[in-house]
Amino acid sequence: MPDPEITSLAATERTRLRRKSERGSLERVEINEILDEALICQIGFNDAGTTFVLPSTFVRIGDQVYLHGAPGNRMLRIAASGQEICLSVTLLDALVLARSAFHHSMNYRSVMVLGRGTKVEDDDEKLAALLATVEHMARGRSLDARDPSHAELRATLVVRIPIDEGSAKVRRGGPIDDPEDMALPIWAGQIPLTTAAGPAIAEPDLPSGAEIPAYAVDYPDRTKRIGQSPSGD
Amino acid sequence: MPDPEITSLAATERTRLRRKSERGSLERVEINEILDEALICQIGFNDAGTTFVLPSTFVRIGDQVYLHGAPGNRMLRIAASGQEICLSVTLLDALVLARSAFHHSMNYRSVMVLGRGTKVEDDDEKLAALLATVEHMARGRSLDARDPSHAELRATLVVRIPIDEGSAKVRRGGPIDDPEDMALPIWAGQIPLTTAAGPAIAEPDLPSGAEIPAYAVDYPDRTKRIGQSPSGD
Repeated sequence: MPDPEITSLAATERTRLRRKSERGSLERVEINEILDEALICQIGFNDAGTTFVLPSTFVRIGDQVYLHGAPGNRMLRIAASGQEICLSVTLLDALVLARSAFHHSMNYRSVMVLGRGTKVEDDDEKLAALLATVEHMARGRSLDARDPSHAELRATLVVRIPIDEGSAKVRRGGPIDDPEDMALPIWAGQIPLTTAAGPAIAEPDLPSGAEIPAYAVDYPDRTKRIGQSPSGD
Repeated sequence: MPDPEITSLAATERTRLRRKSERGSLERVEINEILDEALICQIGFNDAGTTFVLPSTFVRIGDQVYLHGAPGNRMLRIAASGQEICLSVTLLDALVLARSAFHHSMNYRSVMVLGRGTKVEDDDEKLAALLATVEHMARGRSLDARDPSHAELRATLVVRIPIDEGSAKVRRGGPIDDPEDMALPIWAGQIPLTTAAGPAIAEPDLPSGAEIPAYAVDYPDRTKRIGQSPSGD
């Protein structure tokens, strides 16, 4: 169990920001907020000498990240084997348009975690991880959906990865142009970007009584969910 | 030069979809559309035995992807060295809410490219890649921004990666529940997601004459840009 007094990850040579280190953070609260807002992560892993990167759903519970999928899933089997993987999450917040092409940038919040996974064997922990993953997608959904059966739990590989080594990196604010460009008659600023939900699309064959839930009518802005996560803190 | 008659990537053991292969595609037109819509990619690379995944801007020109950044950037230096990297792009299109927790899913379009980069030495090719990257962010922007100077070109490492080995993977449509769950009074369907732009934030110190451009007033829905790319086809 991690010590609750320790609120930041240890600095390691592998996660040290070599450039623009003022953008980096090892604070768990900052790392957790980014992980909780992101709907997908990218998992990097080595398989027979090739580096692969594949997208995946995930959820954070406390100081762990959980991945899940079919038992035959190659990425999950490698993650479950204890071989180190790299989890990367990026939230894109704005395009940053500078006066000079050279200083164009983007605002983002990203997290990288290096870790070795463990296959979750305990059914209660598996169930908790799967329901938390559904909650991570849409708050309240796990109370509405049919719970996983024992057969479904057996047919799901769940992998736990500790958040012990990693870091967050954040860029905020407007462009940083050169002094000699500041008077050019060129517009500069930010175009904010968010992940926005459109009107829900109901399945055509829903029975009466299958009312559309609030989280589907008005899917919440995930940036406003920060600090409200049920995922362990 | 790739043969213009060949419109799909070669199938390789490394990019073959092992599961749900009906979701995969080797067609360049499909791969290119996904790359052109995405604002960022994730680059997986091996450094001294560790697999890292880091976000990056990028642009596609024809059958190449270009990355750029500071010459000291570790990821770029490794990509430029000819060591194989993995580029991953994922567009998240919808949350897929099934009647059962087990069948919850997401709709997405993703691309993975395995490739070995080359440092771009030619100034014209560097300039074209950098301006195309600005256009990739916001159509029309490269005509407004100040062009890179020779010093800025020299201070930028540009890496070209061929799109020769890779694949796209796409999930579309509603949830696929088990027959015995279809009559449950549980709402099921899709919550569409898009990357949406908010009102542009101008820099506070813009001189008169720096009018806000159309692409910042009304940043286009990137899904509608498909087929309009200036990036080589």
